[in-house]
Amino acid sequence: MLIRPALPADAADIWSIIGPTIRAGETYALDRDMSREDAIAYWLSPDGETFVAEEDGVVLGTYYLRPNQPGGGRHVANCGYMTNTAEMGRGVARRMCQHSLDHAEARGYRAMQFNFVVSTNARAVRLWAALGFDVVGRLPDAFDHPQHGYVDALVMFRSLGADG
Amino acid sequence: MLIRPALPADAADIWSIIGPTIRAGETYALDRDMSREDAIAYWLSPDGETFVAEEDGVVLGTYYLRPNQPGGGRHVANCGYMTNTAEMGRGVARRMCQHSLDHAEARGYRAMQFNFVVSTNARAVRLWAALGFDVVGRLPDAFDHPQHGYVDALVMFRSLGADG
Repeated sequence: MLIRPALPADAADIWSIIGPTIRAGETYALDRDMSREDAIAYWLSPDGETFVAEEDGVVLGTYYLRPNQPGGGRHVANCGYMTNTAEMGRGVARRMCQHSLDHAEARGYRAMQFNFVVSTNARAVRLWAALGFDVVGRLPDAFDHPQHGYVDALVMFRSLGADG
Repeated sequence: MLIRPALPADAADIWSIIGPTIRAGETYALDRDMSREDAIAYWLSPDGETFVAEEDGVVLGTYYLRPNQPGGGRHVANCGYMTNTAEMGRGVARRMCQHSLDHAEARGYRAMQFNFVVSTNARAVRLWAALGFDVVGRLPDAFDHPQHGYVDALVMFRSLGADG
């Protein structure tokens, strides 16, 4: 599995991954009917970096890395990861997250924060915990899940570097 | 004190309030050298509503109200409040927050969240607590304060309506 910076030519592959996840509306707080154009612009936002994970020329997943806040919050990174649904369970998200932690540290970030991990997304919560993230906040009923209704969202955080 | 929707003609008054706060960089995670144009565009963002508090035609403070997250997070409001430094201690922020809670409830929001309350901003932390907000998260060293260095930021949250 190779993780490399996303290129403009990856837009169709990226949409094939993020489109179904956005439309399902179960794991990200994004408008489910967001246009393809807006979704790609969001994912490839110029205030950060976007990567794809590929194997034998097939894009398995994609993630972005950007400052979680501007100004005095700029030393904390934020990432979003999405995996091709057909490739789930193969460790793609884990590999992307490990890559992002290394890359964020190399970029000088001191920590990484996930602002809105949907609590019913047990696979993600477990994985982030295994990769050193602590639940530092719980937002009661903050996510309207298409199947489960109002469920909590979690704020997860980890330091980077020697103390990480 | 009258609280009313901000108009395009309020831009200069709004900048006279938000400009010094942004430049000081002590309470908001915004780029301190943000241009006036970008700051006003941020504060008057079309995805929300912006209000001013005025008295005898003088703008004392301003706040915005917008969805904290799109999609499945759209039922939780987010606000930012700034008071003219010359008018601090007069209850302007309290009045604006009370107004925003009423207005958010009228708009159908179910809760309000502040994502990034700088922990050294004791006046704000006390006020939000007095107005029913709980600290639901603590982000360690997430804010680089110009005087104090890395300090925690707090996530504060309250429900609206009957259970609020």
